[in-house]
Amino acid sequence: MRRIYLDNAAATYLEDHAEKSMTPFFKSFFGNASSIYEEGRIVRTAIENTRKKIAKIINALPEEIIFTSGGTEGNNLAIGGAVGNHFKKAGGHIIASKIEHPSVLNVVKELEKKGVQTTYLNVDRLGVVNLEELKNSLRKDTILVSIIFANHEIGTIQPIAEISKIIREFNEKNQTNVLFHIDACQAGNYLDLDVKKLGVDLMTINGSKLYGPKGTGFLFARKGVKISPLFFGGEQEKKIRPGTENVAGIIGLGAALELAQKIRQKESKRLIALRDYFIKEVLKRIPGTVLNGHSDMRLPNNINISIYGIEGEAAVLYLDSQGIACATGSACTSARLEPSHVITAIGLPYEFSHGSLRFTLGRKTTKKDLNYVLEKLEETVKILREISAVKLEKSKYEKAIKK
Amino acid sequence: MRRIYLDNAAATYLEDHAEKSMTPFFKSFFGNASSIYEEGRIVRTAIENTRKKIAKIINALPEEIIFTSGGTEGNNLAIGGAVGNHFKKAGGHIIASKIEHPSVLNVVKELEKKGVQTTYLNVDRLGVVNLEELKNSLRKDTILVSIIFANHEIGTIQPIAEISKIIREFNEKNQTNVLFHIDACQAGNYLDLDVKKLGVDLMTINGSKLYGPKGTGFLFARKGVKISPLFFGGEQEKKIRPGTENVAGIIGLGAALELAQKIRQKESKRLIALRDYFIKEVLKRIPGTVLNGHSDMRLPNNINISIYGIEGEAAVLYLDSQGIACATGSACTSARLEPSHVITAIGLPYEFSHGSLRFTLGRKTTKKDLNYVLEKLEETVKILREISAVKLEKSKYEKAIKK
Repeated sequence: MRRIYLDNAAATYLEDHAEKSMTPFFKSFFGNASSIYEEGRIVRTAIENTRKKIAKIINALPEEIIFTSGGTEGNNLAIGGAVGNHFKKAGGHIIASKIEHPSVLNVVKELEKKGVQTTYLNVDRLGVVNLEELKNSLRKDTILVSIIFANHEIGTIQPIAEISKIIREFNEKNQTNVLFHIDACQAGNYLDLDVKKLGVDLMTINGSKLYGPKGTGFLFARKGVKISPLFFGGEQEKKIRPGTENVAGIIGLGAALELAQKIRQKESKRLIALRDYFIKEVLKRIPGTVLNGHSDMRLPNNINISIYGIEGEAAVLYLDSQGIACATGSACTSARLEPSHVITAIGLPYEFSHGSLRFTLGRKTTKKDLNYVLEKLEETVKILREISAVKLEKSKYEKAIKK
Repeated sequence: MRRIYLDNAAATYLEDHAEKSMTPFFKSFFGNASSIYEEGRIVRTAIENTRKKIAKIINALPEEIIFTSGGTEGNNLAIGGAVGNHFKKAGGHIIASKIEHPSVLNVVKELEKKGVQTTYLNVDRLGVVNLEELKNSLRKDTILVSIIFANHEIGTIQPIAEISKIIREFNEKNQTNVLFHIDACQAGNYLDLDVKKLGVDLMTINGSKLYGPKGTGFLFARKGVKISPLFFGGEQEKKIRPGTENVAGIIGLGAALELAQKIRQKESKRLIALRDYFIKEVLKRIPGTVLNGHSDMRLPNNINISIYGIEGEAAVLYLDSQGIACATGSACTSARLEPSHVITAIGLPYEFSHGSLRFTLGRKTTKKDLNYVLEKLEETVKILREISAVKLEKSKYEKAIKK
C-alpha cells in the first residue's frame, strides 16, 4: 500500500542533494580534521567551507557556528552553556515559554538544581507568547530568554523581532546583558534565519528536520557570547563541542540547509495553499473540530486540529492502517497518554485536548494526498466517535470550545 | 601520488559493508523512531535489533547499551554521569591514569570544580598502569576508576581483568561500589570486548575508529549502574541520551562493530607481523630511535617510536609530502607543540619526547607500503637531523635513553 507521510515535523527524508554531498566523505575523504597532513587538511577545508556557507545563509560569522549532534544537544548547549560551567553552582534567572520543546524545558528545569530561578511565560489560545508578561519578567539577573521560533506541535511562529526589541530595550535601560536564544529546529525549511534581522544571540538548528542527516545540527552563538561546553575533551569547535567531527554529517547539513533556504519561499507558497485547503475542508466536513495555533503566523506545513471526543492515539493508529502517517502531540513524547504540554498551555478544553492531530506536510505532499487523507480522516472520526464514551452533541462541543 | 595512510588511530574509512547497511535509512526508512505508525516502528525495530546485536558481541544485555554521538560524549557520559546530576554539587573521588584520552582527563579535571577529588595513576616506561598505586588509591568514597583499555598514542593494552579484580576485591572487603570504566575506543578492532570477562561496569566505544560512521558510538552501562544524562529532552535512550536517534549512524555502527569483531583475530595476526617487522627495521636502520609502549601488550596496529633530536611535527609534514600520513601525539592535540601528556607520562627524556611518531596500520596496509615508509623515514630523519640544533651523538642518545 502506498504511504502518505504527513509527519515531516518529526523526521524528513535525506534529500538526494544532501546525500550526494556526503558520500565522498565516507571513504574517499575520511581523514580526521585535526590531522595536519593532506587527508586531514582536505576534510578541515570541507568543514570550514560548510561553516562559511552556513554563516552566510544566516548572516553570521563563520566563527559563530558550532556544530552539534542535533537539536537537543544544541538547545542544551545554548541554555546550559550560557549559565556557565556545568559543574559549578550558579545563580541568575532564565525565562522560557511554556510551549518550548522538551529539550529546552527539561534543561531549564534541571538548571533549577544549580540555583537558577525560572519563569515560564504563558501563551494565548493561538500559542503566541505574552509580550507584556515577558516585559514584566525580565530581571537584572536574567541570563537568558529562550523562545521557540516556530512551535513543533501547533506551528505558531513567534514575533521574534518584537521579543528581541523588548530584550534589547531592557538591556539598554538597565545596562544588562540578557541573552536571547531561539530554538529554530522547525523553522529552517520555511522561515528567514537571518540572525541580525531576528536579533538573536543564540539559535539552534538541526539537520534531521531540514531533509538533512539525522544526528547533525549547529548552534549559532553570537561573537562575544560565552558558552560553556556540555562535555570536555579535544580542541574541536573551539573546545565548546569536542569530539572528532562528523564530517559527512556536517557537509550534509550544510547542503540540506542551503537547499531548504533556496526553495523556502516557493515551497512555503505551495504548502500554505495546501495547508489552508486542508484546514478549511476539515473544519467544514467534520463537526466538532478546531484548529490549534494561529491561522497566519503559522508554519506553512503545519496543521494541528483537535477533534472533540476522540483519542488522538487511536486516530493515529487507525490512519496508519489506512496508509497515513501523522502524529498526536510531539513524536518525542507520543508514548505518553496525557495531552501534550503545548496543547495544555493553549488552554484547550479537556474534551478537545485528547483529540489533537498533527499533520505536517513535506516536499512530496500533493493535493491528491490530502484529499485521500480528508476522506480517511472523516471515516476515522466517524468510527472512533461511535465507540467513544463522549457522545458528540453540538451544544456540548460548542460550549466546550467557548470555554 | 599514491597515498599511504598510517593514521588509523585518528580515523578509519567507512567500510562498504557499513555504508551499505546505512543507505536504506537515509531515504527509504527515514521515520522518527519515537513515532507509533509504520515508518516509526520500522526504524525502532532496526535500532533495537542493532542494540541486541551489539549487546551479544560484548556479552551484555540490550538495555545496557546507550547510543551516543561518539567517544568523547561516551567518556563524558560515563564519568560525569556516574558522579551524578551535572547541575548538583558532589563529593567523592575519581581515579584515572595519567595516559587517558583528553575526553577522560578533561572531564575528570572539570569534575574537581564540583567538589570531586581526583587521583591520577602513574604508568611505567612501557605505559602500564601501576597496580600497587591503584590498590593504595582506592577509597571508600571512590566513585569510579577510569582506565583506557588500549592507549591511543602508544598502543599499550592495560591489564583490565587484573584491575577489575583489584576493584572487585576492594568492593567486597569494604562493602563499597567503586565502578570501573574503560575507554575502549581504540580497542574495538583488535581486542575481545566481552564485558563480563573484562569485569567492567562502563565501557565507551565509538564508530569512527571501527571503520564505521563518524559521530556514532555507544556506552555500555551495566544494569544497576545509575548514569545521569549530559543533556535533557525527550525520552530516547531511557532519557540518558535524549535527542532524535541517528538511525543510519546506529545501524552503521552495529555493522562496523560486527565486522571488526568477526575479523579481529585474523587481522590482528596479520598486523602484528607487519607491526613487528616495521619496528625491528626502524630500530635497526635508524640510530637513536626507541619504541614507545609495550612490545607485546600492544595494539596490533600501533607503532610509536621516538627519534632522538628531531621534531615530530616536521617529520609528519615531510612524510606527508612523500605521500605518507602519520601522526605525532594524538590527532586531537596535534596542533600543540609541547610533547603529548602520554609521552610525558612514560618519562621519555626530553631529547626523544619531541620526536615521537605514531604509525597506525589499517585493513589496507601492506608490507610494500611499510617498506616504502621505512625508506622515506630514513630519508626524513637524515634531512631533519642535518638541520637540527641537537646533533646526533651516539654517546648522548645512549645516555639519554638510559635516564
